[in-house]
Amino acid sequence: MKDMDIKAVFIGDKSENGAFYKMQLNKMVDEHLGWRENYLPGDVAAISEADKQAPRYIATREHMVEVLDEVSQRMRAGSIPWHSAGRYWGQMNAETLMPALLAYNFAMLWNPNNVALESSMATSQMEAEVGQDFADLFNMTGGWGHITADGSIANLEGLWYARCIKSIPLAVKEVYPEKVKDKTDWELLNLSVEEILEMVGTFSDEELDAVKAASSRSGKHLQELGKWLVPQTKHYSWMKALDICGIGLDQMIAIPVQEDYRMDVAILEKTIRELAAQKIPVLGVVAVVGTTEEGQVDSVDKIVELREKLYKEGIYFYLHVDAAYGGYARALFLNEAGEFVPYESLPDFFEEHHVFNYDVSIDQSVYDGFKAISEADSVTIDPHKMGYVPYAAGGIVIKHKEMRNIISYFAPYVFEKSVKAPDMLGAYILEGSKAGATAAAVWTAHRVLPLNITGYGQLIGASIEAAQRFRAFLEQLSFTIKGKTIEVYPLNHPDFNMVNWVFKVKGCTDLKTINELNEKMFNRSSYMEGDVYSEHFITSHTTFMKEEYGDSPLPFIERIGLSKEEWQKEQKVTLLRAAIMTPYLNDDKIFEFYTQGITKAMEKTLNEIL
Amino acid sequence: MKDMDIKAVFIGDKSENGAFYKMQLNKMVDEHLGWRENYLPGDVAAISEADKQAPRYIATREHMVEVLDEVSQRMRAGSIPWHSAGRYWGQMNAETLMPALLAYNFAMLWNPNNVALESSMATSQMEAEVGQDFADLFNMTGGWGHITADGSIANLEGLWYARCIKSIPLAVKEVYPEKVKDKTDWELLNLSVEEILEMVGTFSDEELDAVKAASSRSGKHLQELGKWLVPQTKHYSWMKALDICGIGLDQMIAIPVQEDYRMDVAILEKTIRELAAQKIPVLGVVAVVGTTEEGQVDSVDKIVELREKLYKEGIYFYLHVDAAYGGYARALFLNEAGEFVPYESLPDFFEEHHVFNYDVSIDQSVYDGFKAISEADSVTIDPHKMGYVPYAAGGIVIKHKEMRNIISYFAPYVFEKSVKAPDMLGAYILEGSKAGATAAAVWTAHRVLPLNITGYGQLIGASIEAAQRFRAFLEQLSFTIKGKTIEVYPLNHPDFNMVNWVFKVKGCTDLKTINELNEKMFNRSSYMEGDVYSEHFITSHTTFMKEEYGDSPLPFIERIGLSKEEWQKEQKVTLLRAAIMTPYLNDDKIFEFYTQGITKAMEKTLNEIL
Repeated sequence: MKDMDIKAVFIGDKSENGAFYKMQLNKMVDEHLGWRENYLPGDVAAISEADKQAPRYIATREHMVEVLDEVSQRMRAGSIPWHSAGRYWGQMNAETLMPALLAYNFAMLWNPNNVALESSMATSQMEAEVGQDFADLFNMTGGWGHITADGSIANLEGLWYARCIKSIPLAVKEVYPEKVKDKTDWELLNLSVEEILEMVGTFSDEELDAVKAASSRSGKHLQELGKWLVPQTKHYSWMKALDICGIGLDQMIAIPVQEDYRMDVAILEKTIRELAAQKIPVLGVVAVVGTTEEGQVDSVDKIVELREKLYKEGIYFYLHVDAAYGGYARALFLNEAGEFVPYESLPDFFEEHHVFNYDVSIDQSVYDGFKAISEADSVTIDPHKMGYVPYAAGGIVIKHKEMRNIISYFAPYVFEKSVKAPDMLGAYILEGSKAGATAAAVWTAHRVLPLNITGYGQLIGASIEAAQRFRAFLEQLSFTIKGKTIEVYPLNHPDFNMVNWVFKVKGCTDLKTINELNEKMFNRSSYMEGDVYSEHFITSHTTFMKEEYGDSPLPFIERIGLSKEEWQKEQKVTLLRAAIMTPYLNDDKIFEFYTQGITKAMEKTLNEIL
Repeated sequence: MKDMDIKAVFIGDKSENGAFYKMQLNKMVDEHLGWRENYLPGDVAAISEADKQAPRYIATREHMVEVLDEVSQRMRAGSIPWHSAGRYWGQMNAETLMPALLAYNFAMLWNPNNVALESSMATSQMEAEVGQDFADLFNMTGGWGHITADGSIANLEGLWYARCIKSIPLAVKEVYPEKVKDKTDWELLNLSVEEILEMVGTFSDEELDAVKAASSRSGKHLQELGKWLVPQTKHYSWMKALDICGIGLDQMIAIPVQEDYRMDVAILEKTIRELAAQKIPVLGVVAVVGTTEEGQVDSVDKIVELREKLYKEGIYFYLHVDAAYGGYARALFLNEAGEFVPYESLPDFFEEHHVFNYDVSIDQSVYDGFKAISEADSVTIDPHKMGYVPYAAGGIVIKHKEMRNIISYFAPYVFEKSVKAPDMLGAYILEGSKAGATAAAVWTAHRVLPLNITGYGQLIGASIEAAQRFRAFLEQLSFTIKGKTIEVYPLNHPDFNMVNWVFKVKGCTDLKTINELNEKMFNRSSYMEGDVYSEHFITSHTTFMKEEYGDSPLPFIERIGLSKEEWQKEQKVTLLRAAIMTPYLNDDKIFEFYTQGITKAMEKTLNEIL
């Protein structure tokens, strides 16, 4: 009985586990209250019974209850029912893990601050263990990770790592030229992370400090480091990151995506070679595991292969994998020992662990992409996405723990003299003060659901299964409204758990009209119009613009019966978009009930629109 | 009965309001559970009673309870009792506001994400109102603010604002040279924020986009913008911020502090004039309101005066106030209408609102410093410090809402076409996804305790009063241990609520010995040695190094009877350090009880050490 039952770890779409939640919550609150009472039990209480009878006290309490009542009104009127087992098909959100909520609530009562061990002995330790969990999830022996405020900050930190580390050889040349006198500037700009770490590993503490002072933190070398390559469907957090860290948007090159919305690695190679021919280095490449709009998984394996090939030719780039969305899904391929299982064994492996109730297919290209994450220099992973942990909890992992010493603000020997890291986590990260409660929440989630097939694998499996069921459901769906046939077209087989689709009046060959129909569907099935709490089907949407997507949507456009000319004229297509996170739709009965329910709701909305 | 009773808004050092907390918590949890149950009440429950009988379900629940028990053990064994009314005299931490805890717990159950309105209708609105609260607190009409992950991120965002805005004139010169043809480069680098906003206010949307693309976000102009001036006692977050945002540490100039640990404005002026003489511009100046190690308040008024004087001479600098720690204290000077009261009226004002039970003095220089914050371009303010809101909750305010459009990633017309900001807060801030629960917590705290004398003024007043009492207590304290007299020397009268002091064996003239004594006192009165839960006196410490402080500690060194030569030899002094946040020590009886208690504890520790 090693595989976790995911029905036990949520409050439940209909509060089915609500009584247990309250019982456990009260138990833990009592444990905290008792802790306060019994810290030096002989100490007097600062608030007396007489104090509580004071008119000011009573009036303040009344006022406080009124404010909290307003919070309750506002939250109930202004929240989205993504807890629903099958009514919400939109943003990357769902109900969150009950143990994470309980741990957050509980730890928050102590208000630990993980910036330093002094303010958070228990939760700093938990964050260190969570960092190790991340490294293990990606099979990064010798790696190190920590929790960040969100994925944007983790991406910025990844870029900061790349910028600082790649600037080190230039700094060495400036401060200790004799140490690199056998290398050309081009060679210095194409050293691997490992070579750089090895070089600084031979430095004394004083030498390292002097080199760090001349690295990119000085403000120098920012523009020499070269280009930062991102997929053309780039999340806007990458534009912000390049802006903020001073590398600049002029250094960004967007690599086109293929018709499967994965980065085109052939164009990536061509681009890097063209740059190299002009002696323009590549600072780094971003691969995305779980694109925000399509959930697609870049071929990290092919990018890693390309890196190895180019490295032999003296060209090196830093590789950051933005797995903010998809990272946790790697648990699906890890056995209890944390080993990445062979592709051929997957069917047996999934059956042994009762992962799927449906004929789920996972393409080998997706598997290969996940596997190769272990070769990245740094990875973004967000517990507040597929970790089912409440906001805000992002995360980052670096491949080599020693990379920390390049960006840190205290020399390592300071720590050796006193106690061990993470005595002062703030010295090693972009942020400062941070909630220890977040670490408690993530730690608890990871302990309840291990980051392998027995834990998160079950949860992510349910989500992928629901996505594949949902796509099949959409594919056969059609409506007859006022004499017209309405067809439904999902995008191709998804790599992960996101399904995008369009509604289309049969025979319509006009993209503009189709886009309008789908925009109206979104408006009427979202927060945009009216009262979300009474809506029977809720979704989100996205728009693929030619400007960002090039012609990659064209095969889809043609599949739904439109001409190339329509695409060239309209230059965008609006789709409805669902990240399917609800953990309950791998059950035939539940899936059937809700797909019937939302079919009716779609029909009603189509009737209103058409 | 308008003044809030702060004894009603905390759980209490001995859980005195624990029963109320639980009652209100359960009420709100029930409201949430009912909301889940009643969203489309005809929908089936996904978890059946049969599901709950499954062995896997039962085993998973057992496992979950075991993990939560471990969380409880770890938290109780590894947390600091800063809830204590008078045992904890250390870091900037205390128990947090009960209404903030309740609102956080409650809102978290919905998992709102304030990056976009679509994911958080209720809490996005709350964050907008909190931003307005911040602007009102600093009397910034037309200002705008939001919650950040922490103060380091807010400082980084402030620097990012300065960098982007000050680079705009250079970008205009590049893209539309005719628009600035009457200005020299020096003039372009010394335009005020208002002048720059006025200029871009005349641009079309397309023109603004083109100028933004050529601004510092492109990667250009970073080194031309000039120097960033910070007080010599700089928090390391400023070094990180300069590093991360590409301006670089080479552009940092540390301005010495006076013997009161405030920035020396005369040296600031001299430095700026010397730079101007070499045609080196000043990107910006940071004033600190509530220094991390001393709680001191820079003379923001004098810096503002200096800025006005220099501006008439064609020299301009951006002014960021780092009020992460001290910002909330401005509530002490605001009446219910939000007006900053005249200094002469303060005694009557405090008496009318029953703020102090003790003869508290607030220096006019401190008052003037707080008043002038309204003139800053941006301000950092952390709800998780003097806002008594749980981690993580930082904040930033900008003086002019229009500054947002310089750093944003969507053109303003996009929003005019659709709905209103903050439809997509993520477009206007450094971060991405962020917890709506944090906004609910801060909003609730601000509604229960208004940001004026009736609310936060009461709380901050109690804290300042306790600090002044504590300093007076230390000043008269002495011990006789094994025949030796141990004296206690606090630093000079504090600007805010932080008190630093040293223990010293009478007659000792050796700074090294004194430092060792105080380091030992810290080790034995902190998490460093043994079990914090049984300690009777807990504190934190700091070290003033000559490298950072120059000779500003010298008057203190001499006051405790040491020679200038000792300071020059040792070059550092270790002090014990207490940010006094406990809200209960403005009560004679409580203060008396705890100071007796910690006197005994100090005596015991001194006995062990000496």
